[in-house]
Parts: sequence; structure tokens; C-alpha cells
Amino acid sequence: MTESSIIYGKNAVIEALESEREFNKILIATNSRNDAKIERIKELASKRGIVFQFVDPRKLNQIEPEGRHQGVIAQLSPIKYVDLDDFIKNIGGNIVILDGVEDSHNVGAIIRTCVCAGIKGIILPSRRGVLINSTVEKTSAGAINRISVIKVNSLVNAVQKLKENDYWVIASDHHAKDNYYDINYTDMNFALIMGAEHAGISKSLLKLSDFIVKIPMLTNFNSLNVSNAAAIILFEGVKQGVNQRVKQEVNIRAK
Amino acid sequence: MTESSIIYGKNAVIEALESEREFNKILIATNSRNDAKIERIKELASKRGIVFQFVDPRKLNQIEPEGRHQGVIAQLSPIKYVDLDDFIKNIGGNIVILDGVEDSHNVGAIIRTCVCAGIKGIILPSRRGVLINSTVEKTSAGAINRISVIKVNSLVNAVQKLKENDYWVIASDHHAKDNYYDINYTDMNFALIMGAEHAGISKSLLKLSDFIVKIPMLTNFNSLNVSNAAAIILFEGVKQGVNQRVKQEVNIRAK
Repeated sequence: MTESSIIYGKNAVIEALESEREFNKILIATNSRNDAKIERIKELASKRGIVFQFVDPRKLNQIEPEGRHQGVIAQLSPIKYVDLDDFIKNIGGNIVILDGVEDSHNVGAIIRTCVCAGIKGIILPSRRGVLINSTVEKTSAGAINRISVIKVNSLVNAVQKLKENDYWVIASDHHAKDNYYDINYTDMNFALIMGAEHAGISKSLLKLSDFIVKIPMLTNFNSLNVSNAAAIILFEGVKQGVNQRVKQEVNIRAK
Repeated sequence: MTESSIIYGKNAVIEALESEREFNKILIATNSRNDAKIERIKELASKRGIVFQFVDPRKLNQIEPEGRHQGVIAQLSPIKYVDLDDFIKNIGGNIVILDGVEDSHNVGAIIRTCVCAGIKGIILPSRRGVLINSTVEKTSAGAINRISVIKVNSLVNAVQKLKENDYWVIASDHHAKDNYYDINYTDMNFALIMGAEHAGISKSLLKLSDFIVKIPMLTNFNSLNVSNAAAIILFEGVKQGVNQRVKQEVNIRAK
């Protein structure tokens, strides 16, 4: 993360919270004294729906090694996040949900592939995994500006809301019975959940899913990188969409 | 690249060349005096088929900043490369060819996907693009040990040799007319060429290709990462292979 994407020190963080700046999250050292300024930071963060997490002070020292952080570091976002309600109401379209993907290069590559595949929104959880940072932005090759990035405090709530709004939820899990190409992606609004590199998708999200699909392998080496797995599934959807368009054009010409 | 993967200084490089160690290539500063030791290095490298390149001395200073390189740095490989003739004769199977891919993460991710997709060999050119280094090794998540990595001085010669040995050559190029899913991957030995991140596939290789295919998009943002593009094409092949197996099993049961 570049230096410009963090802010540290109590007063600086309060000032940023009172401005329009876009936050990823706020880290507070577990040993920091709970004074009036820390209280103010927590209050302002809660009001704006920004997550604050109590972390080992050594983590703050890693991020700001000169020790001027006063126990508080805010991670800022290079882009403006979109609200899920706003997305559903005013934007719409297919969505990819990343359940705690940890590697910034993977998140950037997935966003790039999403835009190529016509995906309109990507949902990231605010507490686990990577949010948008400068590495994600760079790896996305400009795609970050052509998709709505939605940050939510609860993926379970987000998925429930999507289902209430007629989204079909697809989870990618290598224990699944069905193959990813057995689904018709063209006759629904879908939200595709991809899991973290090691942990996969959390059980609570698998339970909420309408389809659970796997990518079958020809070998016993079953270890696709998450961005490559996302690409394989999303481009099955693209292929179906392209084939449907071709058929429609043939039908129009036939009339 | 980790320190252990380079060797510098004239005597050390000569010693390594006289041993069994596996080289990627040798860099010689353009301003280094052509003395007996440099002559010996060139002679031994030629005998072993190892590429040596004359580069700006600043490049050597970047790799070994303490200036003890004496104008010569050898990049070693963490794995043993396989000879193409040997691969064709004794191993065989489908191949992916990387025409100058520059990013180690991409090469590692492609190797990982190749092994998942049952690809048996990967060909890298010795002069352009990335060879096997510690980042490739790490990103491959162990896959590097389950595939034959073939390093060649001329991709054109390698492709010609593959064609003489009944390989069908497929090139991925976004100007192509045909789509990647119009090919039957299951009834041939194929070599799939993927191009460099920006330059794509060189014309001489496109001319030698039996099929040129594109990945159609639903949007005008046409910018897939090369490892994701490789995954999409290779898993169309896997899908066809899985479907064929299922059909064969049904036929066997029906008998």
C-alpha cells in the first residue's frame, strides 16, 4: 500500500472522518488508551458505517515504522465504494462476491476479468480479505473504474438481500456435484461467490447458495488459482451469452 | 530473484559452467574487456547451449549492487529443463508455449493451471520473457514439479519440430475470426501459444499456426490477463475431455 493511502495519528484520522474521504477500515492498537479522541473516532466511524478493528500494536508499527501513529491508522480507498441498495436499485446486473480473497494481485485480476465478462458489480467484505488498494488498482489495468465495487460489513446479509431481489446465488466449491457448465447463466441475474485462497467459501454462504458448482479436472492436481477459476466460470457464461446473441441474430434474419 | 539463484564473477561463472548446474542465461556487460576468461565463458556456454546476452553494465549493477560482478552474472534455474526432442520421444502430451510472457506471477499461474488441465509440457524461449525463477516456482504452488519445462533458443524451430511430430498448433489472438470453443481439443495433440502481455504473439509464429482463436467478449473492454486467458481456453479443452469420458462410460455400460 502506498504511503498516500494511509492516514495516522488521532487528529488526522478524526479530520479525515469528518471529510468526504473514502475509508477501507481503521486499525486501533489494542493497548491504546481509550481517551476522548479514540471515542470520537469510534463514534464517527460507526456513524459512517466504517469498520474499526483492534489489532496488535506491532501491526501498526509495521505499517508506520516511525512510530508516529499514536495507536490509530486509517486505510483509505483509492475509489469510492457503491452502496448495495443503490446498486440494486439504480445500476443492476451480474455480481461477483469475493469471500475473503487475500491476495491483491488476485483481486485485481478478478476485477479485470469481471469487466471483460460484463459483470457489473463486485462485493468485498470489509473485515476479511483485501479491499481496494493501489496494487489491486494497478493489477486491474483500469477495470476498477468500470465496475461498481461494493463493500459490505456482512456477506450473509448482502447475499440475503440479493436473493430478495431475485438474484440467483452460485457458489464455486470443489466438493460440489454439479459442474460449472451445467448452469444456464443467460436466463437469470446471478451473484457468483468465489472463496478465499485456502479456506474456500464459508459454510453460512454455501447454505444460502442456489447452485454449488465445481470445475472438473482431468488430473488429480486440483489447485487452480482463484482468479483463473473465476475466469473459467465467468467465460462459460460469456460463451452462452455470445451463442444466444448469434441465435437471436439468425432468428431475426430468418423472419 | 533470490540471491542463491545468481552467480557472479568470472571464476565463479566458469566453475558453475563446468559443473552440472542448470542455467537460465548469462549476462555480460557490454563494456567488459574480452579477456581469456570471458572467452572461456562464451565457449563453455556455447558448448552447453546456454544463451549469453550483452547488456548495459547498469543492469548488472541492479542485480548485484555491490559491484563485485566483474561484468558477468549467471542466472541459475531452480529446476532442470527438459530437452524438446526428449519430451517428444519419451514423454509426450499437450503443450503450452509462452511467447515472451514477462511477468513471473503470470508464468507461475499459467503453469499451475496447465497442470490442473493435464498439460504435460511448457515451452519458454531463452532470450525473451521470464524463465523459471523463485517467484515463478512459488506462484506455481508446486505445479512446477509436475510438468516438463522446455527452454528453447528458437520458438519458430520448436513449433516446426512439433508440427513434424503431428502436433496441431493453436494460437490465441484477439484479432482471430474463430472462437476458442469452436475447436475439438480431444482428438489431437495440441500446442497452444499464448502471447506476451502487450505485444501478443509474433507474426512468424502466427503464420505457423493451424488454428488462430479468440476469446469473444460481451463488452468492449478487451483486456484479459494472459493467465486468465490461458485458463479459459485450456478448460474448454478439459470440459470436452470430461464430457467425452462421460460418454465413453455410458457406452461401456450400455454394452
